Amino acid sequence: MRRLVLAAAVLLALPCAPAIAQTRIPEAALRQAAQLREQALADDTGWKVTESLTTEIGPRIAGSEADARAVAWAKAKFEQLGFDKVWTEPVTFPKWERRAEKAEVLGAHAQPLTITALGGSPGGTVQGEVVRFADLAALQAAPDGSLAGKIAFVDYQMTASRDGKDYGNGGAIRSRGPSAAIRKGAIGYVMRSAGTDSHRVPHTGITRFDEGLAPVPAAALSVPDANQLARLVERGPTRIRIALDCGWDGQATSYNVIGEITGREKPKEVVVIGGHLDSWDLGTGAVDDAAGVGITMAAGHLIGQLGQAPKRTIRVVAFANEEQGLYGGKAYAEAHGKDAADMKRHQIGAESDFGAGRIYAFNTGSANPAASREATAQIAQALAPLGIEYQPGKGGPGPDISPIAAKGAAWAWLAQDGSDYFHLHHTADDTLDKIDPKALAQNVAAYTVFAYLAAEAEGDFGSEFKAVTPPQE
Amino acid sequence: MRRLVLAAAVLLALPCAPAIAQTRIPEAALRQAAQLREQALADDTGWKVTESLTTEIGPRIAGSEADARAVAWAKAKFEQLGFDKVWTEPVTFPKWERRAEKAEVLGAHAQPLTITALGGSPGGTVQGEVVRFADLAALQAAPDGSLAGKIAFVDYQMTASRDGKDYGNGGAIRSRGPSAAIRKGAIGYVMRSAGTDSHRVPHTGITRFDEGLAPVPAAALSVPDANQLARLVERGPTRIRIALDCGWDGQATSYNVIGEITGREKPKEVVVIGGHLDSWDLGTGAVDDAAGVGITMAAGHLIGQLGQAPKRTIRVVAFANEEQGLYGGKAYAEAHGKDAADMKRHQIGAESDFGAGRIYAFNTGSANPAASREATAQIAQALAPLGIEYQPGKGGPGPDISPIAAKGAAWAWLAQDGSDYFHLHHTADDTLDKIDPKALAQNVAAYTVFAYLAAEAEGDFGSEFKAVTPPQE
Repeated sequence: MRRLVLAAAVLLALPCAPAIAQTRIPEAALRQAAQLREQALADDTGWKVTESLTTEIGPRIAGSEADARAVAWAKAKFEQLGFDKVWTEPVTFPKWERRAEKAEVLGAHAQPLTITALGGSPGGTVQGEVVRFADLAALQAAPDGSLAGKIAFVDYQMTASRDGKDYGNGGAIRSRGPSAAIRKGAIGYVMRSAGTDSHRVPHTGITRFDEGLAPVPAAALSVPDANQLARLVERGPTRIRIALDCGWDGQATSYNVIGEITGREKPKEVVVIGGHLDSWDLGTGAVDDAAGVGITMAAGHLIGQLGQAPKRTIRVVAFANEEQGLYGGKAYAEAHGKDAADMKRHQIGAESDFGAGRIYAFNTGSANPAASREATAQIAQALAPLGIEYQPGKGGPGPDISPIAAKGAAWAWLAQDGSDYFHLHHTADDTLDKIDPKALAQNVAAYTVFAYLAAEAEGDFGSEFKAVTPPQE
Repeated sequence: MRRLVLAAAVLLALPCAPAIAQTRIPEAALRQAAQLREQALADDTGWKVTESLTTEIGPRIAGSEADARAVAWAKAKFEQLGFDKVWTEPVTFPKWERRAEKAEVLGAHAQPLTITALGGSPGGTVQGEVVRFADLAALQAAPDGSLAGKIAFVDYQMTASRDGKDYGNGGAIRSRGPSAAIRKGAIGYVMRSAGTDSHRVPHTGITRFDEGLAPVPAAALSVPDANQLARLVERGPTRIRIALDCGWDGQATSYNVIGEITGREKPKEVVVIGGHLDSWDLGTGAVDDAAGVGITMAAGHLIGQLGQAPKRTIRVVAFANEEQGLYGGKAYAEAHGKDAADMKRHQIGAESDFGAGRIYAFNTGSANPAASREATAQIAQALAPLGIEYQPGKGGPGPDISPIAAKGAAWAWLAQDGSDYFHLHHTADDTLDKIDPKALAQNVAAYTVFAYLAAEAEGDFGSEFKAVTPPQE
């Protein structure tokens, strides 16, 4: 077995690869990357940055005063970490605020319920009988008008897994459930949190109301509260009251904060890595996404400390307002993905936004993945000592990279172990103590190796401009 | 080894024991207990009672409307479970209410802090610089007046263990910390929760202000918030604001709810088991102490279902207001421990109030433990198949049994595994999902075996009246 694997590795490394002109990474760069990898594992910059953001700023919902402080923090942090160029780019979006929220069971079993408004919910107080649905399809199948004067309760329990795939269900219940409920006549909407924990910390997250519908108060119950409400509904008709004080309040402007380590040969070509700077307001946004900011700032910093700059520029972006609709990522794609020349300048991009668990898999993608297959395999080999597996054909771009990837930019996928991500995601429990410094350092090592090698490659990863029709909303 | 053990067992069972007249349990009762034990392990009454109380009533702070509903619930539940006599006994106490609570860091690192008022705290809003102390001794050692205008922060992290012994420290910081802080001039008091979890669920619990001191707002931070505040204080002077809306509001009367399975031979002699009916207001009081109510109601029920009643009466007590000062236990001792005749009627007592973890140890105690050594060993032997170890010389009475034990009643100790008890204790996270039904059934089996055998014993466990000087407060 071992012999066969070695033979395959030799084949991949052959200079005279078949038809396609292969992107390759020079031997010297691979040696340098191996050193960087070990150095990053022993370095605590990623931890310190994450600690600083979560401690000094704490919760930083987009458009808030704390968000503005986070922008100033990020700028100062890039400068302290020795980035060559640091700047901000404006990102404008509607501002949503949570002020207070309360829910209770009425009647014979009167008791409080722990809830949190979904982002985008209007304020208001409603009370009515609860109608429970096992999942979104069950709600969608309810007869029209059947929820008149009632409160819909979608009671789907998400399952934890390394790749967090059940968030497909949990996220859809959050984003599409309220509109489905309104169509059936509901005056309010509650859901079992899209989460995998068992604590009294409900999971918020953005929801959207379809055009033409009058929004109703929409909230998530903590998992134990959803269990409780399900038991009460099982016993008989159950009325609850939801009182939300929250809502949209004009427009706000925040900023993508960008730091660069300038490339020595092709300074205008960039490897983009980043995380998002904003968080929800309930926790201190540690796994979502101070960790991503910390990991990628530290990777840029470590590359910047080398005696010789990398061939291309390393651009680290702390994206604005990811949580409410990828506003930072969209603004970035708008500003930096205008045409073919813009796109050619993007060697490849990757965002860290799935917590701080160890990275277990790697891949890259583009419209033309064949061209960079060899370089991808070389990077994978440099990542392998970190316990990272090359998974060709798998993955996709991170959230804030997806808008520019949709325009043709190549992307890399560094898959984090998300087994406990949905214990914490969008809750008050998303705090620094949930991060394992060693796992964080492994992430920094992986991003450092990836970004450095992508910047040193001879050839590109297949970025190619395509005009994109903006999604219909 | 095995031979030796058997020989010892035979010796213990010898009718002609040495000097002391030994309490003994007849063979037929031991056989019956073995059957009851297996039956209880397969029975879900304890679970159903616990589920019913936590679901239908939910949080039930003493003196609240929910507490009154809990009293009615307990009475009805005893009746449903076939107890022969069911009644209530009034318990009067000062009523404390929590209405709202909020805290925040002020200034450059402005952010909310998750806190909860300690029971007994006055309301009020204070703001000032935080002075951190590693433990209660450090606070007590601070110079007089050194906290003038400041907020004391005692930042002791409790350690989890099976017997929960570090609650000695955590509990003292809660009960004695506020008064110590006031003596140094503090205008407010915060503590790291007396807890072992890492969630945003602060731990409440009663505190007391020493006579002659003007109470100040006193609250507990969740463990992650205490971490956060400690990091901020480490960075430099940190000001916080605490706003509590809570306080004492006159007197309230609740009830000890009592159910009996009447004894066939000595109906006036009682084996008392129980839990407490009240809970704190944050969670649904599942491990503290619906489980105790469920375990002991189920044990009484199972004994009551036997074809033949036990020799003595099994009395199950759902005690009122344990949380704020053992009011139910004290009222019980007052009503049922007036004199030697009263005390002689108390064969032995045990309360389940340390969660729902498996019982791992057993012992009994009294002023005259030698008299019941044989019966205790016999009960221990009947409990051994449940994984319970006989630990002579260890343990003590449960909280609500302690007032009557102080007057001379014999007590039993059925030690529960409390490794995760202080993850949940007095928090919003104390909900039904934290209880393992199998562990709960093991508890029911243990209480059933113990109560039945104590009721069947020939002889007593050493109860003997002593006049008690009420504790000075």
